[in-house]
Amino acid sequence: MPGLGVLTHTVTPAGPPAQRPQAEDVGILAAEVYFPSTYVRQEELERHDGVPSGKYTVGLGQQGVAFVGDREDPVSMGLTVMRRLLERHNVSPLEIGRLEAGTESSVDNSKSIKTYLMVLLEEAGNTDVEGVDCVQACYGGTAAVQNAVNWVESRGWDGRYAVVVMSDVSVYPAGPARPTSGAGAVALLIGPDAPLAFERGMSATHMAHAYDFYKPSGLYPAVDGPLSVYCYLQTLDLLYSRYTAKWERRNGRPFRLADADHALFHAPYNKLVQKAFARLMYHDITRHGEVPESLASCADCDLRDGSHPRQAAQMPGDLEKALVAHAFPAYDAKVRPSTCVARQCGNMYTASIWSGISQLIETTGAALEGRRVLLYSYGSGISATMLSLVGRPTTNPRFSLARLQAMSDLSMRLARRLPKSPADFEQAMRLAEQRWMAGNYKPEMPSLDDLEPGTFHLVEVDTRYRRIYARKPLA
Amino acid sequence: MPGLGVLTHTVTPAGPPAQRPQAEDVGILAAEVYFPSTYVRQEELERHDGVPSGKYTVGLGQQGVAFVGDREDPVSMGLTVMRRLLERHNVSPLEIGRLEAGTESSVDNSKSIKTYLMVLLEEAGNTDVEGVDCVQACYGGTAAVQNAVNWVESRGWDGRYAVVVMSDVSVYPAGPARPTSGAGAVALLIGPDAPLAFERGMSATHMAHAYDFYKPSGLYPAVDGPLSVYCYLQTLDLLYSRYTAKWERRNGRPFRLADADHALFHAPYNKLVQKAFARLMYHDITRHGEVPESLASCADCDLRDGSHPRQAAQMPGDLEKALVAHAFPAYDAKVRPSTCVARQCGNMYTASIWSGISQLIETTGAALEGRRVLLYSYGSGISATMLSLVGRPTTNPRFSLARLQAMSDLSMRLARRLPKSPADFEQAMRLAEQRWMAGNYKPEMPSLDDLEPGTFHLVEVDTRYRRIYARKPLA
Repeated sequence: MPGLGVLTHTVTPAGPPAQRPQAEDVGILAAEVYFPSTYVRQEELERHDGVPSGKYTVGLGQQGVAFVGDREDPVSMGLTVMRRLLERHNVSPLEIGRLEAGTESSVDNSKSIKTYLMVLLEEAGNTDVEGVDCVQACYGGTAAVQNAVNWVESRGWDGRYAVVVMSDVSVYPAGPARPTSGAGAVALLIGPDAPLAFERGMSATHMAHAYDFYKPSGLYPAVDGPLSVYCYLQTLDLLYSRYTAKWERRNGRPFRLADADHALFHAPYNKLVQKAFARLMYHDITRHGEVPESLASCADCDLRDGSHPRQAAQMPGDLEKALVAHAFPAYDAKVRPSTCVARQCGNMYTASIWSGISQLIETTGAALEGRRVLLYSYGSGISATMLSLVGRPTTNPRFSLARLQAMSDLSMRLARRLPKSPADFEQAMRLAEQRWMAGNYKPEMPSLDDLEPGTFHLVEVDTRYRRIYARKPLA
Repeated sequence: MPGLGVLTHTVTPAGPPAQRPQAEDVGILAAEVYFPSTYVRQEELERHDGVPSGKYTVGLGQQGVAFVGDREDPVSMGLTVMRRLLERHNVSPLEIGRLEAGTESSVDNSKSIKTYLMVLLEEAGNTDVEGVDCVQACYGGTAAVQNAVNWVESRGWDGRYAVVVMSDVSVYPAGPARPTSGAGAVALLIGPDAPLAFERGMSATHMAHAYDFYKPSGLYPAVDGPLSVYCYLQTLDLLYSRYTAKWERRNGRPFRLADADHALFHAPYNKLVQKAFARLMYHDITRHGEVPESLASCADCDLRDGSHPRQAAQMPGDLEKALVAHAFPAYDAKVRPSTCVARQCGNMYTASIWSGISQLIETTGAALEGRRVLLYSYGSGISATMLSLVGRPTTNPRFSLARLQAMSDLSMRLARRLPKSPADFEQAMRLAEQRWMAGNYKPEMPSLDDLEPGTFHLVEVDTRYRRIYARKPLA
């Protein structure tokens, strides 16, 4: 009788595990960024909000706020950026064996963004694709990247590529936090023999329980601003210490910032990125006792007196300012070139830090070979990792840094966005409030004409809350 | 000047990647289940709801609905089951290098359950712990398990264990779906040299976009019942075909159900599990053309006539009934022993399928050595994987099957739960409606006396929606 040979035999596992050798140099093969075509300039917001000139542009270090109205959402942006990744890099849907998403602004509490993205692979007949949504504040995308890298290095790998999509819309109520709103999405292609390979075994992580930023109720987050900045910087201190300790164990000498050619930081707003980079320099200074002349004149700057390093919360304002000024030339060379999207689009949550990778490729290309990129990914709650990538020549010309650079159109796309008025921005935020968990509506803004060709957009949310998407034709 | 050696050097990666050999026989080292102490019997619900006797107990195949009131939630259940895992198996918080959670009923849209669980490791000074929440319906826990296994096999592994926690509360509005409510949590310890090792390279996955069950708005899900059953069974068909094809490629002969000694299925309710197992047998029958006598009398049962296999939606009721009856002896031996928790606690979403592992260990122990366990994990939306584990002797006596079995107290704990009335259950559901996304309250039910010693519980949600938890003392 078939199926009834129960408990009468023993089995050996179904043959040896995958014979494939463990993958090497796993990392980023290609990267794409998407941001909405509509944004508002921070100078205009300053005037509109009646705040002193410079409060948002200098105080926050931001240039624009990207916003989506109700015609785009984290799902549509994810579809747009993933389709862009496949099309521009000529990757067949059949080449993808893993797909996962990082987000903290999903449109459903059960159904993942990943299952929406599957339509791009299903149409080619490919559904044997692992991975789901990674959720933990702005860190979700970094968790997904780590999962993808681990998969490629595991015995479960079947030789195909992984795609990681980060997609978020960040909105805040009217008031001081609203200028830190933003929107954007990133898609990464992950595989072996990568032009930007992760330095394995070097990453340092910190996870803890905190209520600095969370979303317990309604559209807008609950934010404890000072606590959030404190957690971001205190965790940075801890991870720099952990990362450099791992470096020292492996290399037999201390790590210095000079060992990183580029540094990327999660960017709620750019001023915090400036402070973060200055803190790493501060740690180098106090650790090695090499106080630069430019800091000698600062009132609190006897950096050799044993009271350093100061915790982030205890840092006097004048010392912090002096450090940011001292760090500026290095910031200008190592950090600023990868902050452009975040400064012009605002906080993109999970996409924020990874948007810098595309920019680095555009500005630097093959010159990234032999260079180290240090990343600090932070998510409130708390979750954070410091890790590093190294540029390298790849045997696959399809994904060489030179080719990726030649194909990049990032600056051009940023430049051709459509500036909107603060009133348009306010209307979009009012719509977001109305649309939160709502059904039975058709999008109102922006007009389809305002979307770039090839952009996915919401057509309707029906009475049963099902979301229907379509794509604006390419050209 | 420190930190300014910008772009003037090239680097080689920081030494070779981890020299550790790739881990082998990665799988489940230990498993714990937690369910609320309070539940209502399905017979009593039948009487209370005025439905025919047997509608829930036979029609759904369920015995009880576990419910939590407002004193427990997916976070507190996760804390309880994870602490239980560490304490009972004498695992130090310092031995954990990865911790992630699967859930579809989180209490926050940004902050993960994982960050709440970190308090159990933080108190020992361990925060360098990767992993976040995996969200995709009932499949999130399976995704987290795969992530943990991949991590142990990757170059990023540092030799420590991974913990995966699945925790969910499943609630439905008053009406026909309410008897499929439930609650529960599972914690798994993942590492190499495991007594239950995953068969790597054999798993088959199906991911697609569907609206069978989702949570777009409010506390309760949107469910298309018939579509949900259809997607569950249709995906099962597809994955059995994919899994058996992989088996055949590796072993050079077709897979039959006889090659699996145990089969576990995601269990929204037990009747669907019975149908699912019968479908696998049906596929064996049609594929091998071995029609058993017991099916010969069924009107639709000329299984050799070329019209088979029928898709799940086209299966006539009498054929399905005949198949379930025919499959019963094998179901009784291979499936039923691991369905006890799901039948008595209801749908536990992400925890559902993994609760069967603890039961298998309790009932079978060292006799699992050399036996294959087949799993079908399904999440609406759609995400599903069929995979297998093989029992094996381990060189680490701490996690031997015999020892795990000797320690098990699962049946005893199920037996000493506190039956409550349908009115209590209704009150708990009304409270859940009031508490959804609410702040500023203290829990009302059940009384602290009703919780088992060692149970974590909610003490308060404050005006800023911060959730305060405490643990009832151990004995």
